[in-house]
Amino acid sequence: MKEVLKVFKIGGGVLDDEAQLQRFVQEFGRVQGRKVLVHGGGKGASQMLKDLGIEPQMVQGRRITDAATLDVVTMFYAGKTNKQLVAALQAAGTNALGLSGADGNVIRAVKRPVKDIDYGFVGDLPENSVNATLLSTLLETGLTPVLCAITHDGHGQLLNTNADTIASTVARALAAAYEVELHFCFEKDGVLGDLNDESSVIPQIGPEQYQQLKTEGVIAAGMIPKLDNAFAALEAGVEKVVIEHALKINAPVKTVLCRS
Amino acid sequence: MKEVLKVFKIGGGVLDDEAQLQRFVQEFGRVQGRKVLVHGGGKGASQMLKDLGIEPQMVQGRRITDAATLDVVTMFYAGKTNKQLVAALQAAGTNALGLSGADGNVIRAVKRPVKDIDYGFVGDLPENSVNATLLSTLLETGLTPVLCAITHDGHGQLLNTNADTIASTVARALAAAYEVELHFCFEKDGVLGDLNDESSVIPQIGPEQYQQLKTEGVIAAGMIPKLDNAFAALEAGVEKVVIEHALKINAPVKTVLCRS
Repeated sequence: MKEVLKVFKIGGGVLDDEAQLQRFVQEFGRVQGRKVLVHGGGKGASQMLKDLGIEPQMVQGRRITDAATLDVVTMFYAGKTNKQLVAALQAAGTNALGLSGADGNVIRAVKRPVKDIDYGFVGDLPENSVNATLLSTLLETGLTPVLCAITHDGHGQLLNTNADTIASTVARALAAAYEVELHFCFEKDGVLGDLNDESSVIPQIGPEQYQQLKTEGVIAAGMIPKLDNAFAALEAGVEKVVIEHALKINAPVKTVLCRS
Repeated sequence: MKEVLKVFKIGGGVLDDEAQLQRFVQEFGRVQGRKVLVHGGGKGASQMLKDLGIEPQMVQGRRITDAATLDVVTMFYAGKTNKQLVAALQAAGTNALGLSGADGNVIRAVKRPVKDIDYGFVGDLPENSVNATLLSTLLETGLTPVLCAITHDGHGQLLNTNADTIASTVARALAAAYEVELHFCFEKDGVLGDLNDESSVIPQIGPEQYQQLKTEGVIAAGMIPKLDNAFAALEAGVEKVVIEHALKINAPVKTVLCRS
């Protein structure tokens, strides 16, 4: 029987607030067994770009990662956020080890091809982009890998990569070796049936119900890429996807997405 | 018989110049066997502090690491320098994995006690500060650990730590498991017998000759802490200490320090 592995992804809200981050770290420490943490950026990097006088490069309303921006987000995500998180986890008893995709070649990305828009130094994750062997070795040594949203192309170029995509790609890559649960943590208790009612968490959603909720417009636009991503992970062998509040990962209220 | 492990330390010069860094990375790739790389900061962090309007905090002529400075050096060393170096090493065929001291609790430091001067968030390395087990595990997996000059105290606090000290402490900690060579790389071919003659490299220095060279004033003031550090490492079980040019690590001209 395969061991359970829990892959958690956290983003903006919890990373931007020191008190929330500490609460998350404590809750994460209570999660038993093998686990991986993937973190996004938060607002700090945007503020730092401003402080350094780096103007956001936008094309057709989309943010572009130029060389100066890549430098700052690499510093912020792989340096400040990742290391502060690892130090806090270590203090709370989790033997965390921070990684960018370049470290041990753990995630090798491909620079997004230029079609209509040149996104700059942004990485997409093809099949076989994750070094599952290294992650398994670290996990079996008792370590908790903490992945930031910076990858590399194997030719010396770092790349800015979506953290949700990293989380689901890592979960899929480890599904052969582990029974993987993928946990997307955010600022609500789960997927809401009524956006105006925080207590309307839908406990379980299958693929058919998901299509229906989309058709009915119940699921908000911002949630759709996350859930599409989640159902694709289930199709690819991930056992369970959970949408939950970052500060309540050990509480019972959450949305579980299931294969059928 | 123990396996050979080579611990290299690089600093300012080579880190500040992209072309030099690429040359070092190629040379480092040619070094066979188990190896660890420790890197200092370089001038980029100081420039960034200026760009962000953070005034250097000085007390009695010594630089103090206040909270804002620590944030920036963490970003710069653990984020930018470490990740760019790892990505470049990966591209050159070295399976590098970047680490701060917090990662896997690999180096646990102690905040420098306040005596005459409060140095702020600076870490000293007591005995047993290095997690030799983790470094050995990584090395035996075929990885090359790349350590930056940021450590932690185990209670959630990151600390700025001298890279020479990290290199020699790591070398000493691994001397039980490996036959360790410690390589201090800098901008000259070795210890010079005549500061005005770049070709006056002293090929070998033992402890007695070192005392004599100091007495005679042949060894420059800036070199003394590095060499004191080196001879202490030899005393503590490191097999060999080498002082050499960062761009000529595979060339024969260098200074080897020996126990007797």
